[in-house]
Amino acid sequence: MRTIKLIVAYDGTAYAGWQVQAGDRTVQEALEAALAKVTGEPIRVTASGRTDAGVHALGQVVGFRTASRLPPEVLRRALNAELPRDVAVLEAGEAAEGFHATRHARRKRYRYLIDNGPVRDVFCRRYCWHFPAPLDAAAMHRAAQCLVGRHDFSSFQTSGSPRKTSVRTIYEIAVRRGEGPTSGRITIEVEADGFLYNMVRTIVGSLVGIGRGARPEAWLAQVLAAADRRVAGPTAPPQGLFLVEVEYAPKEEPPGSA
Amino acid sequence: MRTIKLIVAYDGTAYAGWQVQAGDRTVQEALEAALAKVTGEPIRVTASGRTDAGVHALGQVVGFRTASRLPPEVLRRALNAELPRDVAVLEAGEAAEGFHATRHARRKRYRYLIDNGPVRDVFCRRYCWHFPAPLDAAAMHRAAQCLVGRHDFSSFQTSGSPRKTSVRTIYEIAVRRGEGPTSGRITIEVEADGFLYNMVRTIVGSLVGIGRGARPEAWLAQVLAAADRRVAGPTAPPQGLFLVEVEYAPKEEPPGSA
Repeated sequence: MRTIKLIVAYDGTAYAGWQVQAGDRTVQEALEAALAKVTGEPIRVTASGRTDAGVHALGQVVGFRTASRLPPEVLRRALNAELPRDVAVLEAGEAAEGFHATRHARRKRYRYLIDNGPVRDVFCRRYCWHFPAPLDAAAMHRAAQCLVGRHDFSSFQTSGSPRKTSVRTIYEIAVRRGEGPTSGRITIEVEADGFLYNMVRTIVGSLVGIGRGARPEAWLAQVLAAADRRVAGPTAPPQGLFLVEVEYAPKEEPPGSA
Repeated sequence: MRTIKLIVAYDGTAYAGWQVQAGDRTVQEALEAALAKVTGEPIRVTASGRTDAGVHALGQVVGFRTASRLPPEVLRRALNAELPRDVAVLEAGEAAEGFHATRHARRKRYRYLIDNGPVRDVFCRRYCWHFPAPLDAAAMHRAAQCLVGRHDFSSFQTSGSPRKTSVRTIYEIAVRRGEGPTSGRITIEVEADGFLYNMVRTIVGSLVGIGRGARPEAWLAQVLAAADRRVAGPTAPPQGLFLVEVEYAPKEEPPGSA
């Protein structure tokens, strides 16, 4: 048996999220169906984490074990031929024995896109939150910096989440407005050692309160300190959220990867 | 009665093209339904031209007459509130009496996008032709220059088109490969005084034959000279095509437009 690591992109619009669940179309299910066709084996995959309904991935990491001897590059092409058009395997490679995409993930980066033009961009409606009122991206960026570091993020966690601890470390958070033809677009990027349920979307919903001037910049630090979900802003909608990349410890990296 | 000119963007994916036709969902129909709601009048609009099923617009120009006294900016907002999410009015303004969006159009610019990466970009599948084999964009650009000027473009016209003449003037045609993160993307832009049915898509289909090395660069001039649709390349698929902008004679421009 070999362990394979895939990097997978998907447009989450048509899916009830990553994880297999009865009665709903999910990305995991689509990938496992393609793997079954290509390898002839009933394969269960692990991923770096779940993504919710409507959330996208530029670089979801997926691992699985297989008896197949197909070279990773051949496997990648065969999977892309079988997968629906809104899911694609970008890279495939052998991973170290014992690699587990969920447990060994060390850092993740998410991106959230806001379409901040007065008229919606019809081509981005599946990939942005259209917020037509002007937002002060520089104020949002300054306010967000209080989240960097190791904190209890329970204010930014949808209640009822099953995690043992709500302490996470954010390494970087940046809010930027585009230039020129993309000046109507605001990008929020967050890198952390892990994320609580709806954490990025709740941070974004809170930052928008600051950006539109309804809250002062210092308010975000108060929200963080309160450790109470009820004081944060609303959860931003799913379609603006992208899982960008996932980092693993060097020893978990594939030895001769693609 | 006033004459109003609109600039309209739409994602053509879900539409059977621009023009109203029985039994199909069209962009014209969606716009006229929104106008009826906002003005209370049964309004028929004219556009710079039809776009086919699956073709998009960044700047389709639409004209109509109305008894409504709503300021154009109010009309724009009201229309955007009524329109489906994949259609948006970017600008609205008063036009000169007698303005006709079809008859007075002088120049149009179309753009065609090719996703030329080995793995499909899942976020662009509705807006690009995914052509995975490497294309030589520089060769395509050089070859395309023979089309600039006044020519009989009947080789690039789907047969059975009802136009009186197949002579058109192309002012500019450019084929460019993106840089950095968009290096997998090829953009083809064409500006002309008018276009025959499927003309851009047939030019693109022919240029791809040159880009992948199946035809020499000089072949395109032979295709043009033949004035015979059977010698050109296949028609490229609709989802990569965008109507970018339409130019009118100065006197037809709105006097105090938005």
